[in-house]
Amino acid sequence: VLTHFRLCPHSRSIRLALKECQVDVAFVEERPWEWQPEFLAMNPAGELPVLSIAGGPDVAGAYAISEYIADVTPLPEDGQSFDLFPGTATERAETRRLVDWFHGKLNREVTHDLLTEKIYARLQPVQGHTPNSEVLRAVQANLRYHLSYIGHLADQRWWLGGDRMSFADLAAGAHLSSIDYLGDVPWQDFPSAKSWYQRLKSRPSFRPILADRLAGTPPPPAYDDLDF
Amino acid sequence: VLTHFRLCPHSRSIRLALKECQVDVAFVEERPWEWQPEFLAMNPAGELPVLSIAGGPDVAGAYAISEYIADVTPLPEDGQSFDLFPGTATERAETRRLVDWFHGKLNREVTHDLLTEKIYARLQPVQGHTPNSEVLRAVQANLRYHLSYIGHLADQRWWLGGDRMSFADLAAGAHLSSIDYLGDVPWQDFPSAKSWYQRLKSRPSFRPILADRLAGTPPPPAYDDLDF
Repeated sequence: VLTHFRLCPHSRSIRLALKECQVDVAFVEERPWEWQPEFLAMNPAGELPVLSIAGGPDVAGAYAISEYIADVTPLPEDGQSFDLFPGTATERAETRRLVDWFHGKLNREVTHDLLTEKIYARLQPVQGHTPNSEVLRAVQANLRYHLSYIGHLADQRWWLGGDRMSFADLAAGAHLSSIDYLGDVPWQDFPSAKSWYQRLKSRPSFRPILADRLAGTPPPPAYDDLDF
Repeated sequence: VLTHFRLCPHSRSIRLALKECQVDVAFVEERPWEWQPEFLAMNPAGELPVLSIAGGPDVAGAYAISEYIADVTPLPEDGQSFDLFPGTATERAETRRLVDWFHGKLNREVTHDLLTEKIYARLQPVQGHTPNSEVLRAVQANLRYHLSYIGHLADQRWWLGGDRMSFADLAAGAHLSSIDYLGDVPWQDFPSAKSWYQRLKSRPSFRPILADRLAGTPPPPAYDDLDF
């Protein structure tokens, strides 16, 4: 069972990883800001996602879960599975550097604030939050920098970490899909980043993400359009 | 070559890991807030530490470096090496959950703000920064919560992740040693956390950390006392 929130980018990266690795899970949705005791018992950090294995452990956080999936799923030689951290030790290090970039830096500089201002604050019991326009302007400037970095990577490599798709692409795609839901990605100015995202978005693993809807906040029409 | 800053907890965790794994490296110190172009060329995220391999890659960030060391060092069966992520997939997941806790949550809630207020702001070209006492009070309250969590783990396990020492201990020890340098750890109120830290502090890998000094900011006398 994966405990997640549908627009949480860390949760989305694990949903994509599980699909690519062909691991079937059930889903439970949690609003981590409500600090429910049952949820804190599962993960005292109060963070999403958490993967609960039947008769086994609760694995908490995108870092532990992604490495756990890589540890327990068969190697891709069988043609059935997908390697989240493919290649040599050096290539794996590059994938992990980028995962840290997207789940750390991109999250701090864009996704976290955008979701807080536009979604999380609105779902709190205390109503009447107005998004802070100064924060949103900073987020928008930071996003352009990150799109240009993704474009720079996509100009040199077929996938962001190298020749093969990896968890770095899934982490980046998870954040961009959440940002895209809120309608703020200037794709037209970053053609290389757009063509990389178009390839990722067309994968079957992306379909459930594109079907997500949040009551009262519909996505823009291009959100689930593969030809945006 | 490890590019690091001596009080940076992420750098310290890698210094400890390299010592425990008996990998000899040279050190270069960097002040990441100066945004030197040579440093940004090595790691565009502008974050420490970075491990540069002769004739090989620059591996950037504590996440990529720790997993890279685990990937390339021989398994501990040879009696020479140390396993940063020991045990079964479940035990490894628990170690990684805790690494994320210390390098993520403890850093955000304590170490980052404490270092910024007491050290980094003072080393900036613009002088005259006075530590913000409200931030320092919040940090101190958060630190008590984290010490109580470490004590809770140490009550149940010999090391924080389980029976064997792991990168979780090194990450926690790296943060607490940086906080300890600034003289703010109420060890006497958290005997279980203290006895765990005492064991860790006595290891040879900790000696270079305890010998660190920053000009103009000496540590309190207990900083390098093994019987504090």
